[in-house]
Amino acid sequence: MMIVDGLQYVNWNRALLEEARDGGVNAIHVTIAYWENTRETLANIGDWHRLFREYNDLITPVRTASDVVDAGRQNKVGIIFGFQNCSPIEDDLRLVQVFHELGVRIMQLSYNNQSLLATGCYESDDPGITRFGKEVIREMNRVGMLIDMSHSAERSTLEAIDLSERPIVITHANPSFFHDALRNKSTTVLEALAGSGGMLGVSLYPFHLKNGSDCTLQEFCEMIAATAEIMGIERVGIGSDLCQNWGYSTLEWMRSGRWTAGVDYGEGTAASKEWPAQPEWFANSSHFGNIAAGLSDVGFDDADVARIMGDNWLAFFEQSFAPGSGP
Amino acid sequence: MMIVDGLQYVNWNRALLEEARDGGVNAIHVTIAYWENTRETLANIGDWHRLFREYNDLITPVRTASDVVDAGRQNKVGIIFGFQNCSPIEDDLRLVQVFHELGVRIMQLSYNNQSLLATGCYESDDPGITRFGKEVIREMNRVGMLIDMSHSAERSTLEAIDLSERPIVITHANPSFFHDALRNKSTTVLEALAGSGGMLGVSLYPFHLKNGSDCTLQEFCEMIAATAEIMGIERVGIGSDLCQNWGYSTLEWMRSGRWTAGVDYGEGTAASKEWPAQPEWFANSSHFGNIAAGLSDVGFDDADVARIMGDNWLAFFEQSFAPGSGP
Repeated sequence: MMIVDGLQYVNWNRALLEEARDGGVNAIHVTIAYWENTRETLANIGDWHRLFREYNDLITPVRTASDVVDAGRQNKVGIIFGFQNCSPIEDDLRLVQVFHELGVRIMQLSYNNQSLLATGCYESDDPGITRFGKEVIREMNRVGMLIDMSHSAERSTLEAIDLSERPIVITHANPSFFHDALRNKSTTVLEALAGSGGMLGVSLYPFHLKNGSDCTLQEFCEMIAATAEIMGIERVGIGSDLCQNWGYSTLEWMRSGRWTAGVDYGEGTAASKEWPAQPEWFANSSHFGNIAAGLSDVGFDDADVARIMGDNWLAFFEQSFAPGSGP
Repeated sequence: MMIVDGLQYVNWNRALLEEARDGGVNAIHVTIAYWENTRETLANIGDWHRLFREYNDLITPVRTASDVVDAGRQNKVGIIFGFQNCSPIEDDLRLVQVFHELGVRIMQLSYNNQSLLATGCYESDDPGITRFGKEVIREMNRVGMLIDMSHSAERSTLEAIDLSERPIVITHANPSFFHDALRNKSTTVLEALAGSGGMLGVSLYPFHLKNGSDCTLQEFCEMIAATAEIMGIERVGIGSDLCQNWGYSTLEWMRSGRWTAGVDYGEGTAASKEWPAQPEWFANSSHFGNIAAGLSDVGFDDADVARIMGDNWLAFFEQSFAPGSGP
């Protein structure tokens, strides 16, 4: 069974990479930047080049959908570069293609806050996609970079779906009907996303789950079934948002970047500010089998389980990572 | 006959690109940066992406030697990205591979002045390749980026030849025996360069020529013959240093960058500071045929003329642009 994870953020070492490889993970969309500017992002890419050399036996870069299949054949984990924010391109349209050439295949248009392109999910008002945002959407369509609205606000997300000539993605979030958080997505968004051929990666980050860390495997899989009812079985995958081996300072960077001198708790609270504990049935990358089993238990047949675990992502990447047909 | 130019710096437009294409030029090493930092260099690369789209019928990017041959088959001019300085990598070893992935295949270790890597040809003292420089040479060897010492000082150049495990290049300069300028190269350098399998691109920039703009075609071709005697026929190509369609402000930027608030005249003088006039027998890219004819006139046979005009560069790129064998 092909396993593709629509998002993880892990401080990798040999043990964690072996865990993913031995857990049967064919490809992971990894995060290269949250708030980093162009120069800082290049440094992060440079660090990944070192990881590819150091762990040459375990990982390989993914630039096309067929690279995901090749990774599996080599018994390696394919690594897909993505940005959780548009900060790496600064104010420069030209950098979309530059980063595409460096292997970046997915970019969020905003991360929690207002960006130069779109509004984030924690802003109080959402004026929609900006003038620059419209240009970037067109350019991402052209080069073959997926538009990700996981951390964006509703109107911006709906406009991005509408403006983009190619299907877009929400790599890691859950439906609001499952757990009503600002980061989760309304049925309106899910329907529009599916209607345009886009995909949702359902998240296992506890702040996105009903009952947080206590969410049961059955509740999670029933949510997937209900989501597949709304979106269609081909439009759902896993985007675990698994975060491993980071200290609190990394979480502070993700939440507060350089935009506040205060403390922002993001999805957490002052009383519960630390990294949340994963559900015990999905503690790490060796546990994807539990989800597959849980999906069977709630009634999915083998083919549908395979779709959700990875086949849908593969088919979606096939159409999304190819260069656009436009001029 | 394959024509490859080891360096030009042109403010391209359709007419000039057609002139090069119709002049039979298969590939040109173009300059992406003189003093630009990382961020500025990405912007320049982005501008080249636009040129590739706008002049898709005339130019195509070169990343491998076979791309040069393909360019000829498509009746297009192949474009090889290069830096005349190491400023684009700033102080970050990781950026060698990053820029290699963006298509950069040639980098000078210094441009006239001392750099973080090596000494430039206008410094009074040359302490040789720096600590960082040794690391960068090793990394350039690994990824397959050519080390160019055209604007470097003598000791640094000899050390680079010695330290590099792969042949290096002087893309555009002439022998000092032809015209004794700080930018031209001693016989010691030419012998060491050839001895390690490197190449020299002979220059048509008037400040590098005997009698400047008045240099005759015969004098130029006799210089090539004398250089081939020293270096071997396979070690010599053309690196015209043709500069077209720029104003004086560009020349000021090339000479003075941001490193002086005064005026540096580079190879010129206060009395003769402007762009020099090209010899009339090599005014532009339509005149490569004149050089080929001149080489025949001084006694080269057809095969040797073909080597000097492009075959040597092609063979050299074949070995130089491939990734290194090291770890």
